[in-house]
Amino acid sequence: MKQLNNEQLKVLKYHQKNIGVLEIKSDLKIENREDLSLAYTPGVAILSELIKEFPETKKDYTMSGKLIAVITDGTAVLGLGNIGPISGLPVVEGKALIYKDLAGINALPLAIKQTDIFETVTTIKNISDSFAGIHLEDIAAPRCFEIEERLRHELDIPVYHDDQEGTAIVVLAGLINAAKVCDKDLKKMRILINGMGAAGVAIAKLLHAVGFENLTLLDRQGVITSQTVTANKWQRDAASGTEKNVSGKLLIEAIKNQDVFIGVSVGGVLSPAMIRTMKSDPIIFALANPIPEILPKIAAEAGAAVIATGSSEYSNQINNILVFPGMFKGLLEQGIKKITFELEDRIAQAIAGLVKEPSRNEIVPNALDPAVVKVVSEAFMKEVLINN
Amino acid sequence: MKQLNNEQLKVLKYHQKNIGVLEIKSDLKIENREDLSLAYTPGVAILSELIKEFPETKKDYTMSGKLIAVITDGTAVLGLGNIGPISGLPVVEGKALIYKDLAGINALPLAIKQTDIFETVTTIKNISDSFAGIHLEDIAAPRCFEIEERLRHELDIPVYHDDQEGTAIVVLAGLINAAKVCDKDLKKMRILINGMGAAGVAIAKLLHAVGFENLTLLDRQGVITSQTVTANKWQRDAASGTEKNVSGKLLIEAIKNQDVFIGVSVGGVLSPAMIRTMKSDPIIFALANPIPEILPKIAAEAGAAVIATGSSEYSNQINNILVFPGMFKGLLEQGIKKITFELEDRIAQAIAGLVKEPSRNEIVPNALDPAVVKVVSEAFMKEVLINN
Repeated sequence: MKQLNNEQLKVLKYHQKNIGVLEIKSDLKIENREDLSLAYTPGVAILSELIKEFPETKKDYTMSGKLIAVITDGTAVLGLGNIGPISGLPVVEGKALIYKDLAGINALPLAIKQTDIFETVTTIKNISDSFAGIHLEDIAAPRCFEIEERLRHELDIPVYHDDQEGTAIVVLAGLINAAKVCDKDLKKMRILINGMGAAGVAIAKLLHAVGFENLTLLDRQGVITSQTVTANKWQRDAASGTEKNVSGKLLIEAIKNQDVFIGVSVGGVLSPAMIRTMKSDPIIFALANPIPEILPKIAAEAGAAVIATGSSEYSNQINNILVFPGMFKGLLEQGIKKITFELEDRIAQAIAGLVKEPSRNEIVPNALDPAVVKVVSEAFMKEVLINN
Repeated sequence: MKQLNNEQLKVLKYHQKNIGVLEIKSDLKIENREDLSLAYTPGVAILSELIKEFPETKKDYTMSGKLIAVITDGTAVLGLGNIGPISGLPVVEGKALIYKDLAGINALPLAIKQTDIFETVTTIKNISDSFAGIHLEDIAAPRCFEIEERLRHELDIPVYHDDQEGTAIVVLAGLINAAKVCDKDLKKMRILINGMGAAGVAIAKLLHAVGFENLTLLDRQGVITSQTVTANKWQRDAASGTEKNVSGKLLIEAIKNQDVFIGVSVGGVLSPAMIRTMKSDPIIFALANPIPEILPKIAAEAGAAVIATGSSEYSNQINNILVFPGMFKGLLEQGIKKITFELEDRIAQAIAGLVKEPSRNEIVPNALDPAVVKVVSEAFMKEVLINN
């Protein structure tokens, strides 16, 4: 192990102090036999019988009605790659902490062994009765696509993959305000998405679903269309219907005349020269972590009008924390079981709407502003009114 | 649903108030970007890298080092039978609450769908990295035997089935003091165990392992020996080596000249006439719930010297709560990964030892006495000294 700096030692102490950063809390103290009878036998038998007769009461009388599972298999942890399930545990535990601290949501960190997709889906399905929602985290593409799709099909609770929908929603929120700043027509902007992993595919799907008309999808092998045989099914599906204005094959060609570059790929792939071939007032979302596709300073010098990254070191951090705490708060409060593109769009608009006067240095709100959770969770209330 | 009485309505309110009786608690408040960096990215990357390089550090830096999973498939819930996983949730949640309130142990209630044994084992194995121990609950015999055996073989954390080991340990604790009260030679007592489900098999195995010499095992079809073809493998194994003094085939015959009757079967099967055929000062553990094999009053009239039940309505409640909170506290504190018969024996002795002057109305301590968790958890300390 390399030498640790003071900041890193502080992180270790912080997580070691109480063995992790979460605990189980009892809502009631058992002090005498009467308490015990209420909390456990014989009293609890009536609850078991109630749930047996009316299964839907489970969510009102047991923790499973309010508990989210934050699950990783460790196949794509942060920027560290496939480092295994237990190495992914600190990340899902951090997410669970954020759920509690920012939105009061109870979330449990879970590491799941790396197995085939069928077994992973079966495992999650087999324990799903204990939870009110599933948050998938740091699962590599393309397995994440099939795992999420199958779970959404088989489970009756919301299933969400932070690296897909979370990123897509906050990117859309950023685009809404970036378009305002640059006075561009949002859905008519020409957008190049570079990197067709979990985030890239999800961004393309969401933008297409909400009516963006000019998307170009690009991965290592070049531009992807619905006919690209080297692309996987999920990438081809994402490209389907978005490909009518695609030109060129490589990034250096495809970037020409784009309004927006969205990088969810690897550090350093975007050059100042490429930015200079984009339309006027180009918008650059360089979201690769830990090193962005182009450094903000260099992008600005090349004429970028708005620049966002995934890092807290620069302004305009495209951060999923803007999405998931408030989103699950809203889903649970409203009893919504499916996350739709329409809901995702509404969350993005709620987040974007919090920035009263968007500027090139402020297209998204501060993730720690309590107003974020509030507006995101309340974004669903209309949905319920419409559907019931 | 039948009409509920006031006591039952109180139970419902108690569990509905906060949606179940447990919450996730955050140990740290995220108030600014620095907190966020410590709790989540970028700080948490160092933890992921540390665990990648030294997997054993997982238990020191994540909640998985202190969290027990209390798992049921709902195949044998309380006295209600196979009412399904979600109907079992209130029971495992009650157990998790007891863990926290009595021993400060973090425990998570989990319902697992009913599948074949292989899939159940695979599911638990696939999520086991998230936990420091597995507590199985309300799983029917004989599937509970194979599930536990396979998990113990495959996992590197303690695996415990409350309906097996828990009951066996507290029965042994009760026997130790009952023998004192009746001035009988503990391990030479002739003992009949009626009911060869999870509890009966486990009691037979533990008693045999710690040196009891005269056991008679009985199930619906009559006395079970290692040759009984209608018995399952686990029942035959439990009978192996315990069968030398077995006589008779049915309860009415086998009960003759026994010192002890241990009922883990069904209500009402033991008659006063049967008790009168036992040796002098017979010991009756009538543990069936909710109705014991014989009512204490009737057993006393028939000459029983010591009577125990599973119910809090009578003295001498044989209650697993005496065992599991302190046991897992000790296992976690001492880093012990396997629960052995020797450990179980030591726990039973610790529990029995708490009753300074055993009497016919007091052979086990009060489960809510804090001294119980203390002595049970400390019972393992010598084990560690010996083995390291």
